Amino acid sequence: MLNQPTLITPAASPSPGEFGARILHLVHRLAHWSELPEGLKCTYFSPEHKAVAAQLRDWLLSAGLEATIDGVGNVIGRYPSDTYAAKTLVVGSHYDTVANAGKFDGRLGILTALVVAEYLNREKRRLPFHLEVIGFSEEEGVRFGAPYIGSSAIVGRFNEDDLARRDANGISLAAVLKGAGIDFAAVQKLARRPEAYRGYLEVHIEQGPVLLHSNVPLGVVTSIAGSVRFHVTIHGVAGHAGTVPMSLRRDAAAAAAEMVLEVERRCASNTKLVGTVGQLSVPHGIINVIPGFCELSLDVRSIDDTVRDGAIADIVAAIQKIANRRQVTATVKEIARHDAVPCAPQMQSALAQAIARAGIETIFLPSGAGHDAEMFAGIADIGMLFVRSGNGGVSHSPLESVTAEDADVAARVLLDVLVNLH
Amino acid sequence: MLNQPTLITPAASPSPGEFGARILHLVHRLAHWSELPEGLKCTYFSPEHKAVAAQLRDWLLSAGLEATIDGVGNVIGRYPSDTYAAKTLVVGSHYDTVANAGKFDGRLGILTALVVAEYLNREKRRLPFHLEVIGFSEEEGVRFGAPYIGSSAIVGRFNEDDLARRDANGISLAAVLKGAGIDFAAVQKLARRPEAYRGYLEVHIEQGPVLLHSNVPLGVVTSIAGSVRFHVTIHGVAGHAGTVPMSLRRDAAAAAAEMVLEVERRCASNTKLVGTVGQLSVPHGIINVIPGFCELSLDVRSIDDTVRDGAIADIVAAIQKIANRRQVTATVKEIARHDAVPCAPQMQSALAQAIARAGIETIFLPSGAGHDAEMFAGIADIGMLFVRSGNGGVSHSPLESVTAEDADVAARVLLDVLVNLH
Repeated sequence: MLNQPTLITPAASPSPGEFGARILHLVHRLAHWSELPEGLKCTYFSPEHKAVAAQLRDWLLSAGLEATIDGVGNVIGRYPSDTYAAKTLVVGSHYDTVANAGKFDGRLGILTALVVAEYLNREKRRLPFHLEVIGFSEEEGVRFGAPYIGSSAIVGRFNEDDLARRDANGISLAAVLKGAGIDFAAVQKLARRPEAYRGYLEVHIEQGPVLLHSNVPLGVVTSIAGSVRFHVTIHGVAGHAGTVPMSLRRDAAAAAAEMVLEVERRCASNTKLVGTVGQLSVPHGIINVIPGFCELSLDVRSIDDTVRDGAIADIVAAIQKIANRRQVTATVKEIARHDAVPCAPQMQSALAQAIARAGIETIFLPSGAGHDAEMFAGIADIGMLFVRSGNGGVSHSPLESVTAEDADVAARVLLDVLVNLH
Repeated sequence: MLNQPTLITPAASPSPGEFGARILHLVHRLAHWSELPEGLKCTYFSPEHKAVAAQLRDWLLSAGLEATIDGVGNVIGRYPSDTYAAKTLVVGSHYDTVANAGKFDGRLGILTALVVAEYLNREKRRLPFHLEVIGFSEEEGVRFGAPYIGSSAIVGRFNEDDLARRDANGISLAAVLKGAGIDFAAVQKLARRPEAYRGYLEVHIEQGPVLLHSNVPLGVVTSIAGSVRFHVTIHGVAGHAGTVPMSLRRDAAAAAAEMVLEVERRCASNTKLVGTVGQLSVPHGIINVIPGFCELSLDVRSIDDTVRDGAIADIVAAIQKIANRRQVTATVKEIARHDAVPCAPQMQSALAQAIARAGIETIFLPSGAGHDAEMFAGIADIGMLFVRSGNGGVSHSPLESVTAEDADVAARVLLDVLVNLH
């Protein structure tokens, strides 16, 4: 019985590769439940999603944890401290997926926590805090366009307005929850008291190429980037492709092209910035007609909101300048804004020390993607451990990959952090 | 009875505005037949198209011409010379339209020729050649994706392969012609002997802004631009908009943007050139995904095939250079090629002299759009007279416009050319 921090002694260490092999086995098992005949899709409260939840609960029970599925579908495994009044450290991630998803996004974090808790229980190592391994039911926002359904409920940030959202079949979130026997009042009761948290940790596949290019398996997340999204429409003047001289054109697509390159140029000027035009289209474009209309999306992110907002101001000004020079009109509409969320210095430090003890170079990097951890910011100290993505860092794709070796070292580092955290 | 060229004496001149008012009246009358409840659409061998043909034939008969509708739908009005063995001058244009078309495209030319022939007959002025006023049945290529059905038949250039083309309802051109009682052998019999032509003239709305910007009602076409069309596909690497640093991206849309601007830059370098990216798309683009694929169309035209091909070579090289630098792959597929067609110097001169006699500044300009005149190139001396477009030069739009004053002076110039042509 241990209720104070300790280094893992060699005798008590898991056998080499044990964690990694088991995590990958479980990752592949979970991927058997899919809404698609080919490719992985597991969206909120589908039959396959419920089957995954039941499987996770069963594995948590087998691992020796207390395990339940709450009203919104979160799977919660509890490994209690021997001090009843101890705080709770949550280690979680999500088990829902996008369409044609990879197997690791979200699930890697749940299963890494699961095998570590399983090990702790097997070794009868108690911690100075209650450990909760949580598989959040919804993070991707696929079915209702509202992400974080699971984690927002647990932290008391569930948005009542989202109940009116409907899926592609016109079924509302409220109706789906009602079918599961839960209403908004009951969702609110799932929220924990902030003072009860020791912290929040999340292991997650990087979903990018930074660790791969740095040739290291793990990285400490410094901050989850904030993002601002825009929809940009450009009205020019359509014309016959053969009859309007270049000098008299007011081509909406050429203006858009210049804007795309300006987004790229401005965002490349600061390594803390990324900017993406993911959607670009001349609707109903015709090969011999000068585009009179073009539309594009813009997503700008940074771990530093000031850097991000400075870039946005420059980009919006550049868009207007391009539009004015070309005598087209551009309308820039902000459609979403999330500020950056820093990870707690204490958690970053704990992760970095464990990585160093594992003999690995310590890399710090921001998270460009959003994660359940964001929901815990301001409520608990959050920390995130990224695991190297294979295949160039591809994400939201069947090509997404994590090696057993990398998963193994991620679990060992998590174990080290847990047993050394006060 | 006049069988030698003459200047129109003031006494014999049409009354001021007579031609313009009548042309606009007839243009608006023809637009009553449309396949759409709102907006003009008149495509090959639709009931409305046949009604327009019948109306044109009736007006030609009323104008004192011999008039028939041939097997492929061309409406032919013949105003014979008093010399039986004389050659034939064709003055024509097309009566089919695109969807949501303007009223002047094609029809202006037929009706201008009609009112001039009507005047000649009323004044009993015979010409040293037979005059044929032809309303070609098909130029736009809307129904079967094959333009020039009418004019190609008359010049013996009808493409037998086009018989297999099908419309949006799956009906083949062969079946449509069979329904009209004509097969390929019969189409071939519509072709005239090249040596029978005195020449070909066409009056057409400019479909562009050059005359409008030059503040003149008419212009002499020097050449019909050749065009080459391409479909360009760009494969990059999709990635998460938040997690892939700008420096590691292989963004297909950013590459496309650079290509669009290169087309614009290169084609602006020579006033004989135009280049257009009319289609530009990231198919199924997602706001938070770096585009892994983008496609665009490219249409490059010039009155000088050497200039055009030089530009194409530069643009294709630039596309590959951009692709290489950005580590994406670009495939450039040529999908159509038409060489430039010069107008006959003699016809340009005849038109220019008549314009000068009308007291109008003489402007020479190329035609960026294709016209029925192209079909006659190499068979007869061709000449084209452009009439100023209003509303900024807009084409293929209900906003397309020609004033009665401009139509009037176009008809007077055509009349002058006809009575002065040897």
